[in-house]
Amino acid sequence: MTKKVITLGEVMMRLSTPGNDRFLQTDQFQIVYGGAEANVSVSLAQWGVDAYHVTAFPNHDLGKAATNYLRQVGVGIDYIYTAEGRMGLYFLENGAMQRASKIIYDRFDSAFADFDGEEIDWDQVFDGADWFHWTGITPALSQKAADLTLKALEAASKKGIMVSGDINYRRNLWQYGKGPLEVMPELIKHTQVIVAGLADFENCMGIKADDYVEACTQAKSEFPQIKYITTTERNSISASVNELYAVLWDGKDLLTSQTYEMTHIVDRVGGGDAYMAGLIYGLLHLSDQEALEFGVAASVLKHSIPGDANLVSLDEVKALVKGENVGKLLR
Amino acid sequence: MTKKVITLGEVMMRLSTPGNDRFLQTDQFQIVYGGAEANVSVSLAQWGVDAYHVTAFPNHDLGKAATNYLRQVGVGIDYIYTAEGRMGLYFLENGAMQRASKIIYDRFDSAFADFDGEEIDWDQVFDGADWFHWTGITPALSQKAADLTLKALEAASKKGIMVSGDINYRRNLWQYGKGPLEVMPELIKHTQVIVAGLADFENCMGIKADDYVEACTQAKSEFPQIKYITTTERNSISASVNELYAVLWDGKDLLTSQTYEMTHIVDRVGGGDAYMAGLIYGLLHLSDQEALEFGVAASVLKHSIPGDANLVSLDEVKALVKGENVGKLLR
Amino acid sequence: MTKKVITLGEVMMRLSTPGNDRFLQTDQFQIVYGGAEANVSVSLAQWGVDAYHVTAFPNHDLGKAATNYLRQVGVGIDYIYTAEGRMGLYFLENGAMQRASKIIYDRFDSAFADFDGEEIDWDQVFDGADWFHWTGITPALSQKAADLTLKALEAASKKGIMVSGDINYRRNLWQYGKGPLEVMPELIKHTQVIVAGLADFENCMGIKADDYVEACTQAKSEFPQIKYITTTERNSISASVNELYAVLWDGKDLLTSQTYEMTHIVDRVGGGDAYMAGLIYGLLHLSDQEALEFGVAASVLKHSIPGDANLVSLDEVKALVKGENVGKLLR
Amino acid sequence: MTKKVITLGEVMMRLSTPGNDRFLQTDQFQIVYGGAEANVSVSLAQWGVDAYHVTAFPNHDLGKAATNYLRQVGVGIDYIYTAEGRMGLYFLENGAMQRASKIIYDRFDSAFADFDGEEIDWDQVFDGADWFHWTGITPALSQKAADLTLKALEAASKKGIMVSGDINYRRNLWQYGKGPLEVMPELIKHTQVIVAGLADFENCMGIKADDYVEACTQAKSEFPQIKYITTTERNSISASVNELYAVLWDGKDLLTSQTYEMTHIVDRVGGGDAYMAGLIYGLLHLSDQEALEFGVAASVLKHSIPGDANLVSLDEVKALVKGENVGKLLR
Amino acid sequence: MTKKVITLGEVMMRLSTPGNDRFLQTDQFQIVYGGAEANVSVSLAQWGVDAYHVTAFPNHDLGKAATNYLRQVGVGIDYIYTAEGRMGLYFLENGAMQRASKIIYDRFDSAFADFDGEEIDWDQVFDGADWFHWTGITPALSQKAADLTLKALEAASKKGIMVSGDINYRRNLWQYGKGPLEVMPELIKHTQVIVAGLADFENCMGIKADDYVEACTQAKSEFPQIKYITTTERNSISASVNELYAVLWDGKDLLTSQTYEMTHIVDRVGGGDAYMAGLIYGLLHLSDQEALEFGVAASVLKHSIPGDANLVSLDEVKALVKGENVGKLLR
Amino acid sequence: MTKKVITLGEVMMRLSTPGNDRFLQTDQFQIVYGGAEANVSVSLAQWGVDAYHVTAFPNHDLGKAATNYLRQVGVGIDYIYTAEGRMGLYFLENGAMQRASKIIYDRFDSAFADFDGEEIDWDQVFDGADWFHWTGITPALSQKAADLTLKALEAASKKGIMVSGDINYRRNLWQYGKGPLEVMPELIKHTQVIVAGLADFENCMGIKADDYVEACTQAKSEFPQIKYITTTERNSISASVNELYAVLWDGKDLLTSQTYEMTHIVDRVGGGDAYMAGLIYGLLHLSDQEALEFGVAASVLKHSIPGDANLVSLDEVKALVKGENVGKLLR
Repeated sequence: MTKKVITLGEVMMRLSTPGNDRFLQTDQFQIVYGGAEANVSVSLAQWGVDAYHVTAFPNHDLGKAATNYLRQVGVGIDYIYTAEGRMGLYFLENGAMQRASKIIYDRFDSAFADFDGEEIDWDQVFDGADWFHWTGITPALSQKAADLTLKALEAASKKGIMVSGDINYRRNLWQYGKGPLEVMPELIKHTQVIVAGLADFENCMGIKADDYVEACTQAKSEFPQIKYITTTERNSISASVNELYAVLWDGKDLLTSQTYEMTHIVDRVGGGDAYMAGLIYGLLHLSDQEALEFGVAASVLKHSIPGDANLVSLDEVKALVKGENVGKLLR
Repeated sequence: MTKKVITLGEVMMRLSTPGNDRFLQTDQFQIVYGGAEANVSVSLAQWGVDAYHVTAFPNHDLGKAATNYLRQVGVGIDYIYTAEGRMGLYFLENGAMQRASKIIYDRFDSAFADFDGEEIDWDQVFDGADWFHWTGITPALSQKAADLTLKALEAASKKGIMVSGDINYRRNLWQYGKGPLEVMPELIKHTQVIVAGLADFENCMGIKADDYVEACTQAKSEFPQIKYITTTERNSISASVNELYAVLWDGKDLLTSQTYEMTHIVDRVGGGDAYMAGLIYGLLHLSDQEALEFGVAASVLKHSIPGDANLVSLDEVKALVKGENVGKLLR
Repeated sequence: MTKKVITLGEVMMRLSTPGNDRFLQTDQFQIVYGGAEANVSVSLAQWGVDAYHVTAFPNHDLGKAATNYLRQVGVGIDYIYTAEGRMGLYFLENGAMQRASKIIYDRFDSAFADFDGEEIDWDQVFDGADWFHWTGITPALSQKAADLTLKALEAASKKGIMVSGDINYRRNLWQYGKGPLEVMPELIKHTQVIVAGLADFENCMGIKADDYVEACTQAKSEFPQIKYITTTERNSISASVNELYAVLWDGKDLLTSQTYEMTHIVDRVGGGDAYMAGLIYGLLHLSDQEALEFGVAASVLKHSIPGDANLVSLDEVKALVKGENVGKLLR
Repeated sequence: MTKKVITLGEVMMRLSTPGNDRFLQTDQFQIVYGGAEANVSVSLAQWGVDAYHVTAFPNHDLGKAATNYLRQVGVGIDYIYTAEGRMGLYFLENGAMQRASKIIYDRFDSAFADFDGEEIDWDQVFDGADWFHWTGITPALSQKAADLTLKALEAASKKGIMVSGDINYRRNLWQYGKGPLEVMPELIKHTQVIVAGLADFENCMGIKADDYVEACTQAKSEFPQIKYITTTERNSISASVNELYAVLWDGKDLLTSQTYEMTHIVDRVGGGDAYMAGLIYGLLHLSDQEALEFGVAASVLKHSIPGDANLVSLDEVKALVKGENVGKLLR
Repeated sequence: MTKKVITLGEVMMRLSTPGNDRFLQTDQFQIVYGGAEANVSVSLAQWGVDAYHVTAFPNHDLGKAATNYLRQVGVGIDYIYTAEGRMGLYFLENGAMQRASKIIYDRFDSAFADFDGEEIDWDQVFDGADWFHWTGITPALSQKAADLTLKALEAASKKGIMVSGDINYRRNLWQYGKGPLEVMPELIKHTQVIVAGLADFENCMGIKADDYVEACTQAKSEFPQIKYITTTERNSISASVNELYAVLWDGKDLLTSQTYEMTHIVDRVGGGDAYMAGLIYGLLHLSDQEALEFGVAASVLKHSIPGDANLVSLDEVKALVKGENVGKLLR
Repeated sequence: MTKKVITLGEVMMRLSTPGNDRFLQTDQFQIVYGGAEANVSVSLAQWGVDAYHVTAFPNHDLGKAATNYLRQVGVGIDYIYTAEGRMGLYFLENGAMQRASKIIYDRFDSAFADFDGEEIDWDQVFDGADWFHWTGITPALSQKAADLTLKALEAASKKGIMVSGDINYRRNLWQYGKGPLEVMPELIKHTQVIVAGLADFENCMGIKADDYVEACTQAKSEFPQIKYITTTERNSISASVNELYAVLWDGKDLLTSQTYEMTHIVDRVGGGDAYMAGLIYGLLHLSDQEALEFGVAASVLKHSIPGDANLVSLDEVKALVKGENVGKLLR
């Protein structure tokens, strides 16, 4: 049966310089839309999942264009609202060779950050849903966004829906007066699948540990509802060459995926979200180890595609997991 | 001797859809930088005037790119500062035929709007200057920007520098708690050359009149330092076809320029600023009637050039005033 | 209450040369998707109508991209099927000045032309629908497409839904062995609103007349269910300059719209479909004369937009009917 | 029977700014190849004439690309040579509205200007030829180019081939030490069809006259081999709007073509060459008046096409002469 | 003496997404023309061979553009015909990293597939020719195309011209009712140089073998006119990284070329055709081992060039064979 | 205190094919401006140095555009002159994989080559300057350019300013009648920092040596004012993969930098100039070994940026020296 997944979060217009141009050189920007949570819905929609994204856009043509984009790539827009405020933006300069990629965020005072979501009937949103996904970016934006996240999580919990949360701590957010330790634990309590690296454990759960399994064990003892903890490991040899694998702690063992060497990277933004989407798909349809491998293979393919979104098919991910069709010419 | 002109105001990144594309269609934006006051400096710089623009940008690559742009087109950047805040933006969809052009502003909380300008040594800025130009957009942005304008005007007045002000009333600005009638008269008191239409007289000076000369006369009686009042008259037959002329009231007579039929308009944004620059150039170097004609011809040429800036030479404007080279192929 | 409109027909990938390039010059094509009937749905979707398009695409990435495009611009894709066959294509070279525009069709053996539509539950398609629109292009493609049209019309008739048909006779179609007079009358019998010029009357209804009202009167006497007959009149002064108006015969009187002079035409393809959409919208929401004016204004705006689709808002069409905002710069 | 036409002259790489951009704005150039004489061959090749162009290019990839271009558009390259020297270039900024177009030539020391053509077997070149066309640009380039022109003319004369010469006086050429009156008369003596305006008569033949027919009559009395004298008359209302017609003096009467209003001009460069090609085609295949009309119609269509070359078919020119298909949409 | 080579086969318009875009993302296609056999002629033409391609195009502007393209890159078009039917097309999405490249063919019912070639005077085509090249794609298209291939082969045989055939078995062709084993052996009988991998031996000659030399030996015993059998071996590490070498069986020994590591692949389509062209050039001008090395080096360079065609010079291939200039900056 | 650096040399317009296109494929060129010496000033300007470039441009829009470009990237234009002559040009085709990059120079008779610089007040130019940089390209252009270089060097020497010279011997320059050994030694006598490889020593100083330190030692014995000799060593595995390091001889020891592997090279033109700029910056601000490492790191980053200019910040170079941020995503 078709699964239904709900995601919540800001969607920004992404403005990237063409090719390898620097911000100082460009006289045009390529635009597309993305956000850590919406990117997950986009991936899932490619794989036949009924994915709905909950967000708010300003009530003008740029907001409409963003909505249209999500609709184009197959995401359900029934829970997209309009609100006062600007369109959140981010500017991207893709790196190359040893030169790093750069992002300039311009997302303060966005329609989503100021959105209280009073018109949302969460009961209806979650009706028949199998999964809810949120990230630590949302509660970092504003008090309203933090409140909205909690309200969503409580509604999801009440329905007994599986919840994943990508902790995703970012120091340059959290500017509305509260720190992550004041906000995140309450949200994590409603979450069964956690994406976290060691820095996330420390900054958002107050758990300091040098060893990943130890951190996971501590987290589970504090948040016993947790079922899985996972993270990707990326080795950046250059902007064009990375190695990638992921681990999944199932409460007992730490499963490890195969490692991919990614040369000739096209666009690494959204790589983590692609993993998350793959993992959700996998946990809904496959065994744990298969889910982990599906997630990493999905993430690898994302790196070959311009934009935030992982526009790959189920067959393409499955083939990569099996090592089939790699770099072939399919006629 | 080379003239020195100072302008003050916000410079925004302009993001326009390519060709005739609508916001709902585009996946890229052309970018350039512009602002009502900086546009005046850019024009003047093409004509050999030492033009300096005073503004503030955020301290990141987009701010640097904007600074570089002004430098490229010949504007002095000695008085460009960095400040906290975002880059002001505006999105432009060019109209065609009966379809109107659309601008979506995204300029709140910009570095310039929050800039108090304490580090500016106005005495040094105006040293040797012949002219200062401001517009009603700046005091409409924020209290700080209004204060900054007043400070600049007082310094210019003290030096006895000629001042022009483009009233440019825009209803959707003025959101910081004050109305134009509380702010503008104090600024107009320091201004000798006023650009105003009937709506500007009413909204910013409280002068209601049906006749332009009557409005001018009233304005002069209230603000006796005024020497000239001027405005352009545009008849928009379609987005592609306009008629344009201008009038200049010299305190006694209303001079009228020739009327230009503009078909096949390329980009009308900045047309008014191009007129203003032409008028300033003219009043500094020519007779009143010549100044008026120079301003309108400059404005007409602007409509043939993509972007906010009027990248035309002195010879090109002069030739158009004389009706020479019109639409020719110059080898 | 929101209206529901159903359209049926082939959607082609349109490949157009950029700018004013000729086929012999280009090394790239701009692509978008369109078809006479789908274009109507796209227009209606911009105006808040629940518009659903019924069609079939090949089961590969180009078919998916076409589906995604319709979804992006707001058309319901619940009744889009996959079928054996190719993607229908058309190549477009935009004219300029005295040089005509050229279309090379490449639509034979498309998935839609070979689609028998057996899996369509027409009862469900028309459930709650207010209008069904078809054109004479579909029955001209293949026997299967003619049969499909008839089946749809019968189902619509049974439900008492209003039906419009754009006769749109094209000599270079009709290559499957039947002529229009063998097929069209049976379809017209189920249709209340007819779009036809004098050539259409002759070729598809066997009605020869020199006068439009006379032709309408004859048509009504043969097809008494007809309520309205309409057509646009276009005077092509050049590829860049046209005059346009429309007439609507209401069974009694011939209403005539205002005439628009369109200079600086951007893209005339889909102009007739934009009129049709406007008329349908108007007949569902406005008086007859208002509907006619709404249709023509919508068509005029289409000429300013690249692509087949008329991406304009309700407010924009209404403003043009009233002569407001024409060619202005809206901030 | 298929006609054979020979043309001689420099072919330059043309570098034009995209769209309406000025030289000061662009960071790219569109490139194509053209030259007054080669443009004539390109036109004729579109109409089924065996057109061969005689020229020389530098022996590197840009020369090869230029050769390939001529081959692509159907011109015979059997008489294209390589020589020492640079590729001739010209930079083009297209005008718009009242703003003039600008050309910056960079053609000195080109391979063609330094080419002595010793390896050319003119007897073979003109074998079976029906027409030879040259222009006054070639003898203005260098002594070698003037000598080459004379050699070609003598060979053509010996074979009794019809010769046309476009006088095309350009003051900024003629920098190698000789003036036009020292060189041109000798060349004109071998020419039956002359393209000349009043300034050309004066500068290149020493004939001063205010009246065109008078000038023609004087020219014929000095150069009795002349059969036809012709010129186009262009009224430049703006860069986007011109009126165009042509006259043809047949030794007795002055035939006048219809006048075309050209709005929305795409590219006027090569308009005169397109006329010349049309006239040659006409004089080879049609009556004098028809030839004149064919030439002007060809020239009008050229203005709708980017680049130097008039890529239109015989049918398209013929249709315009008859006023058919003007600005239509041909399916 | 200049060699003359004839190739026969369909030429398609190739429509590829720009950069790394997927079909689902693009709104434009880059176009160029190619086909397995024409690609061989294009390569040979770069190296000074008189290469003529025999094919048929539809009689419209796209057919003309394709003809012009072949002419541009130096292929003789004397034997290009027009015929009823469409332009064959293929859509290409270039892979990157682990993501495979995808081709969607749209070539059925093309002008070439329906072309019976009755107007071809094969005797004249092969007059003075040194080589004829065909591939297994042509007989797989249609009965007419298979018949045409046989007719060409018989004519070539009669003249004693060397013939090469690239077996190139593709399962998704062969849809007209015959299988390869019914058609190919008759064609192979006229062929001296065979390109075949193990799957080709099995599917088109009925030869099953695990060892390449064994397969070659069997093939020669069945088709004793065979002189050479060859194939390239490609190891696809990713879409961006491949290893390549080739083998050539001369009836006795299996010669092996050096192996190239190709990182940063730009476009692998046409890589095999570039090898074939190189081998033909080599067998006409060089020793066997040199021919093999020339072919592989040519193929490697092809991978660095966008499009189907291998636009490299003789000097460039020769330098790579010697390991000179590799990746240098040549001034 | 801010350092002031002067550079002298020709600035050319660079016209490069887009992406991986060959000269034979392109119909457009990307343009930017560059020259070996100006590239040094551009780099230094990014790092806060007051860099002034001395050159001459033709007095037309292309010369203005070049001047504006230098101004845009922060170079002082106070000593840019206009002169008779053309704009120097170079055409660039970027290599890929094993395929080499190609440059076609078109710089003869440029405004700079014919510029005698009589209007330059060298005393004023060098007032307060800390460094002067020249290259062996300038004296190779023309006698005037050689004279100009000497004049500049004498003035710099008189002021005791540090001077660097990049010998940069190019066989295809030096066409005005003198050889390098007649000109260069006199210039080298005024130079403290020499960039030279073994071929430069031989061709420009007459020093033949197999060992770099031996060559340096000989050079110093002939030119005792020399303080440093340096060169970069590049191993070109392919156009996309190079290894790079540099050595610096300080009169006693040969310091060696770390070696960088550069995969996925974007644009290698200007890599040597970026090193030179880095070395100058380093010798002005850092220890010798640090200067060497700074230079090489700057050069590596250049390879990731399109164009001649190294638009990287001080922080970016410093981070690479420390191995920080390599290929990261900086938010």
